[in-house]
Amino acid sequence: MRDVAVVGIGMIDFGELWEKSLRTMWAEAALAALTDAGVDSVDMVTIGCMSPGLFAGQEHLASLLADELGMAGVPAARVESACASGGLALRMAFAEVAGGLSDTVLVTGVEKMTDVDGADATFALGTAADQEWEGFHGITFPGLYAMLAQVHMQRHGTTSEQLAAVAVKNHANGLLNPHAQYHLKVSVEDVLASTMVADPLHLLDCSPVTDGAAALVITTVERARELGSERPMVKITGSGLATDTMALANRNDLSQLDGVRLAAERAYAMAGRKPEELHVVEVHDCFTIAEIMTTEAIGLFDPGFGASAVDKGLTSLHGKIPVNPSGGLKSKGHPVGATGVAQVAEIATQLWGEAGQRQVEGATIGLAQNMGGSGGSSTVHILEVAS
Amino acid sequence: MRDVAVVGIGMIDFGELWEKSLRTMWAEAALAALTDAGVDSVDMVTIGCMSPGLFAGQEHLASLLADELGMAGVPAARVESACASGGLALRMAFAEVAGGLSDTVLVTGVEKMTDVDGADATFALGTAADQEWEGFHGITFPGLYAMLAQVHMQRHGTTSEQLAAVAVKNHANGLLNPHAQYHLKVSVEDVLASTMVADPLHLLDCSPVTDGAAALVITTVERARELGSERPMVKITGSGLATDTMALANRNDLSQLDGVRLAAERAYAMAGRKPEELHVVEVHDCFTIAEIMTTEAIGLFDPGFGASAVDKGLTSLHGKIPVNPSGGLKSKGHPVGATGVAQVAEIATQLWGEAGQRQVEGATIGLAQNMGGSGGSSTVHILEVAS
Repeated sequence: MRDVAVVGIGMIDFGELWEKSLRTMWAEAALAALTDAGVDSVDMVTIGCMSPGLFAGQEHLASLLADELGMAGVPAARVESACASGGLALRMAFAEVAGGLSDTVLVTGVEKMTDVDGADATFALGTAADQEWEGFHGITFPGLYAMLAQVHMQRHGTTSEQLAAVAVKNHANGLLNPHAQYHLKVSVEDVLASTMVADPLHLLDCSPVTDGAAALVITTVERARELGSERPMVKITGSGLATDTMALANRNDLSQLDGVRLAAERAYAMAGRKPEELHVVEVHDCFTIAEIMTTEAIGLFDPGFGASAVDKGLTSLHGKIPVNPSGGLKSKGHPVGATGVAQVAEIATQLWGEAGQRQVEGATIGLAQNMGGSGGSSTVHILEVAS
Repeated sequence: MRDVAVVGIGMIDFGELWEKSLRTMWAEAALAALTDAGVDSVDMVTIGCMSPGLFAGQEHLASLLADELGMAGVPAARVESACASGGLALRMAFAEVAGGLSDTVLVTGVEKMTDVDGADATFALGTAADQEWEGFHGITFPGLYAMLAQVHMQRHGTTSEQLAAVAVKNHANGLLNPHAQYHLKVSVEDVLASTMVADPLHLLDCSPVTDGAAALVITTVERARELGSERPMVKITGSGLATDTMALANRNDLSQLDGVRLAAERAYAMAGRKPEELHVVEVHDCFTIAEIMTTEAIGLFDPGFGASAVDKGLTSLHGKIPVNPSGGLKSKGHPVGATGVAQVAEIATQLWGEAGQRQVEGATIGLAQNMGGSGGSSTVHILEVAS
C-alpha cells in the first residue's frame, strides 16, 4: 500500500447558519481545502453526511456536490455511519489512495441540521439508534448516553462534577478556536445548574445541533512532495473501523465502548503505535460521558480512570495528553456528518504547528476518534509528522 | 493492486414483501451469499442503501446490520448514491480488497420501500433529484425521464413502440428468473395501452417500487483458490465511477448520459476491454428509455441506435449482445439500494454458467451498469472468467 498524506484542510465557522444551505456550506469548505492544498482537480470526492434526506429532503449528494463545485464527472461517493460519517469518508478515501485506485481525494463532511424543527431533528438523530428496539420505545440519544453514564458512575464512582469538568475544559479550548460554534466559558457550577435533560446529563453535558462542513485533501506522499508545501509532511499512518451492537441491550458491558476499542486497536496496529506515544487527540464528545468513555476505549486511561484524568487536568490543553483542543463537539459544535472530518483537520493543523493559541507544543503524533450512535460504529485515524 | 474475485452471491425474491423488514431481508441475502461462498467470516461489510431514513426511519445500517448478522465488531460501512448505491457498495469493497486493506468483503444492497405510502415513496425517490432546482418545482422521476425520452425521440426518431419493446424483452427475460418481482409477459400493445404516467412514458415503461436485498462475497484471487470452488474463477477486472450534473437543466446534451459514458470508459480502461468484447450486460433500466440511453452510453451502440437495436432483437436473450437477461429493473424489480448488487450477482451467475433457462451461452465477459437519479452518478463493473 502507498503512503498517504494530508495536504490541505478547509473549515467553515460552525453554528446555526440560517443564511447557508447544505450545498453552499459544503462548497465553501471544499474550496477552502483545495485552495489550502494548492490543487485544482482531484480524482475522487468522498462525502460524509448522516441524513440529508431527513434534515434537508435531499439525498444523492455525490451528484449534487460534485456539480456544485463545477466538477461534474469526477467520481464521488457519499458514505453514512450516523455521527461517524465523516470518519468513514476519510476511510473510503484512504483505501482509494493507499490502494492505488485514486491519487488525490477531496474528503468532506457536511450536515445542515437547523432547517427542521427540534422534534424533527431529534427524530433524525434518533435514526442512529435501533428504531425497533430503542426508538420505538421512546428513547432518544440523551437518554441512551444517560444510561451509559449511570453505569459508569455505579461501576467507577464517576461524578456529575467530573462530567461537568469535560464541558469546562472543552469550552475553554473552544474559546481559542475561531471556527467554534460557542465562544463561551462555563464553570462546573454552570453545568450543574443547567437544565437536566436525562439524569445525570444536564444541558451543558450535551453537544449542540449545528450546521457545518469540513474538508481535507489527501494524496500520495510523492504527489505531496511535488506540491512543495513548506509544512511538515503529515501522513495518515493508521485507519481503524469497527462496529458494536446497535442496541445497548445487546452489549456485554455498558461501562465501556467495545467498538471504539476495536477501531483503535486496528489503527494502532496499522500505524505500529501505542496510546502512550500520542501527543494530541480529538475524541467524539457528543456528551461529556462520551469523552470519558472514549479516552478509556482508545487506551489513554485504564477503565474507570477517564473521569479523574479530566479532574486532574491530564487532558487539558497543556496537560499530559491534550484531548479535544479544538473545543470538541461540545464547544466547536457537532454538524454530525462534518464532525469526523473536522477532527482530522484539527489534528493536521496541530501537527503542522498552525493551531495558534490552542497549539499543543511539539505535537508530532495525533489521533482522531469518530463515533456513530451510542458507539455502534467508530473510526480511528492516526496522523504523524513524517520523520 | 491485487486481483479480486466474486466467490458467492445471495439473492432474495424481490417483491412487495409485507412480512419482511429491512433487516430480515438483508440478513437473508447476506447469509445466502456467505453460504454460497463457503465463508463464515469477512473482514468488512459494505451496504448500499438509498434512503433507509425516509423509507424506514432508520439510518446507521452499518451498526444495525453487522449486529443483525451476529458480526458486531466487524468493520462495516453504508454508502449511498441514490439508485447507484449498490454499485457504490461494490466499488468501496473493491478498493478495500484490491488495495490490500481487507481480504474478504461482504457486499450488500437493500431497500425496504413499501412501508411508506405512495406519496412518501415518491418524495423519497425524488430526493435523488435536485430538490432546489427540480423537486421544488414539482417534478419527479417519471417526468425527468420523460424529458430525456422526448429529446431522444426528437433527436433520433425513437418511437413509443421501441420504448415498449424494451419492456417486452425484459418481462420475457424476467419470466425465466425465479427472483423477479413480476412473472408477467407483456406485449407492445399492453405497454401502449397502459396508463400514461408522463408523456411518452406509460406505466409499463416504468420500473416498480420493490422490497429486496442482494449480496456478494468478494475476495482476493488467492483466497478464492483456497476456497476450492468448482466454478470458473470470476474476476472483477474493471471498476468505473462517475458523476454528471444533477439537474437536467445543467447538461450539455439531454440525448445522452455523460456520467454513464465516463464510468464505462474508466471501467474499460482498467479492464483493458472494449464494448464489442462483452457477452452479457446488465444496465439500469429504471425506465425503458434508460435502457436505450445506457446501452448507447456504454458503447454497445452508437448514439441513436439503442432503440433500433432492441427492435431488431440484438439485445434479446439470444441476440448479439443480451442486455438485462435477469429481467432488469423493469421486471426483476428495483429495490433501489439492492439493484446494483443484484446486477453483479446476475453477471456472476451468467459467467458461472448457472443462469438456467436465461443462460447466455458461452458468456465469459460481462458488464453491470448502475445509475443514480437521472444519471447524476453511475458505476460500471466488468467481470471476466479468468483465463
